[in-house]
Amino acid sequence: MIGTPLLGALEGGGTKMVCAVGYVGGAILKRKSIPTTTPEETLPKLARFFQGEGVEALGIGSFGPVDLREDSDTYGYITSTPKPGWADMPFMPVLRDALNVPVGFETDVNLAAIGEYTLGAGRGLANVVYVTVGTGIGAGIIIDNKPLHGLVHSEMGHLLLKPSADETHPDGFCPYHKGCLEGLASGPAIEKRWGEKAGALPPDHPAWVLEAEYLAQCCANIIVAISPERIILGGGVMHQTHLFEPIRRRTLDLLGGYIRSDKILDDIDHYIVPPGLGDDSGTIGGLILASRQLQR
Amino acid sequence: MIGTPLLGALEGGGTKMVCAVGYVGGAILKRKSIPTTTPEETLPKLARFFQGEGVEALGIGSFGPVDLREDSDTYGYITSTPKPGWADMPFMPVLRDALNVPVGFETDVNLAAIGEYTLGAGRGLANVVYVTVGTGIGAGIIIDNKPLHGLVHSEMGHLLLKPSADETHPDGFCPYHKGCLEGLASGPAIEKRWGEKAGALPPDHPAWVLEAEYLAQCCANIIVAISPERIILGGGVMHQTHLFEPIRRRTLDLLGGYIRSDKILDDIDHYIVPPGLGDDSGTIGGLILASRQLQR
Repeated sequence: MIGTPLLGALEGGGTKMVCAVGYVGGAILKRKSIPTTTPEETLPKLARFFQGEGVEALGIGSFGPVDLREDSDTYGYITSTPKPGWADMPFMPVLRDALNVPVGFETDVNLAAIGEYTLGAGRGLANVVYVTVGTGIGAGIIIDNKPLHGLVHSEMGHLLLKPSADETHPDGFCPYHKGCLEGLASGPAIEKRWGEKAGALPPDHPAWVLEAEYLAQCCANIIVAISPERIILGGGVMHQTHLFEPIRRRTLDLLGGYIRSDKILDDIDHYIVPPGLGDDSGTIGGLILASRQLQR
Repeated sequence: MIGTPLLGALEGGGTKMVCAVGYVGGAILKRKSIPTTTPEETLPKLARFFQGEGVEALGIGSFGPVDLREDSDTYGYITSTPKPGWADMPFMPVLRDALNVPVGFETDVNLAAIGEYTLGAGRGLANVVYVTVGTGIGAGIIIDNKPLHGLVHSEMGHLLLKPSADETHPDGFCPYHKGCLEGLASGPAIEKRWGEKAGALPPDHPAWVLEAEYLAQCCANIIVAISPERIILGGGVMHQTHLFEPIRRRTLDLLGGYIRSDKILDDIDHYIVPPGLGDDSGTIGGLILASRQLQR
């Protein structure tokens, strides 16, 4: 691949930082996971890894909330996280200054959305929503071939939903909101509700009926509000692939035939889909974001 | 205004068609309302009005659902309305062929959103959501200075919400959905729930507490999902201006401090606002849309 710039991708999570180097087409050459401890300890390790590899640009997807406004004094900062030491932290600027290469900055879920939209399940489409369902629930929204950066980035995990008729915990488990999506349907919410880790529950457990209900409400609300060309559901909870069928059926039920699009009504199997890049959506998105910095 | 092209605006509703002529800056010279009966009767009247005025371009906002995809065979059609005679009706093509001038086509609420975003309460902002609350509830979403056209247009009125704790009709009154925004909070829903027209209920009536709850849920969900720079609430129900205060307070309650934006937390009075163009948002939006067709 002589002549193709070597790129870095960084998925910055609250528990670990996944570093990778590769090429824009999605080829991943090396990967390294670094625990997220204090910024003083973690940031130099990240810089050393990418310096050692000699990347020519870096694409970062960060846990948040973050500041994505390029004209802001705190662009590239993690802003208000409860994680000790990381609030008001110039995450991107520190790495950009250490590496002295162009660095792109996004939310973690926007990074995965960029990967999926460019090379994965959203390839060829202009408007795609990628939802990750795991420790938290978040969405990356691509509108007109660009990640949506609103006043703040999407916090789709905190959509208020309608409690299921047989709901025993209608308020859910979010410390901020009563009855939001994340509080009702994230991995930790499943565990708190049923007293077992989500991964340990068998496919016929009633947990999944409830989970499909809330994720279908999420899909239905995304469809009526934003109407993307495809919804991609990823993240750890969606490793339970048996969830896709009930989510699709229940989404159609909830829409009640109101949204007259044959792409939804007649082809829901290709409308609500798993990621095309498996668990590499974020890493590949990071390489693509890095590449774009070189083109600017 | 010699040298400035005369433009036409058409707000096409299911009950009446409001025609206007004017200039792009928002000056409205003449207005005429034509009842929406059959297409055979209504469309020629519309064409004659705009022909008589000699407009050089026309901007249409139509009741729907409509086809907004410019590359579609049925672009500019009303698609699946239950209104007799109007389903699969080439609304825009018929008028374009009759007038032989450039014609722009949008949803009715996108037309108002264009007006508000360009010359009204959203002036100077790139991302704005305009919600109309009246006979129906709909939203026009401006992202990056353009109306959002998804797979189909936004049907924000059919967001599923969380019933209020003291709700007596948790399913609401929408024929398609149980517990959607429009079924819980549109003008007709208020009338069905309380047995009186919304306009006849005094400001201290409990109807308004419930109305503010659902519109606040709508605002909170728009904020977490799309995060616009401003939300504009218009339409007949919002003539009850006393609603703005409780909607703003309840939206902040529902967000629970999670969205850290000083534009929301410290300045909600300028974040959730009435239209800047009063009831002319759609007409002025139509003139702007017409003008854009001349520039293409």
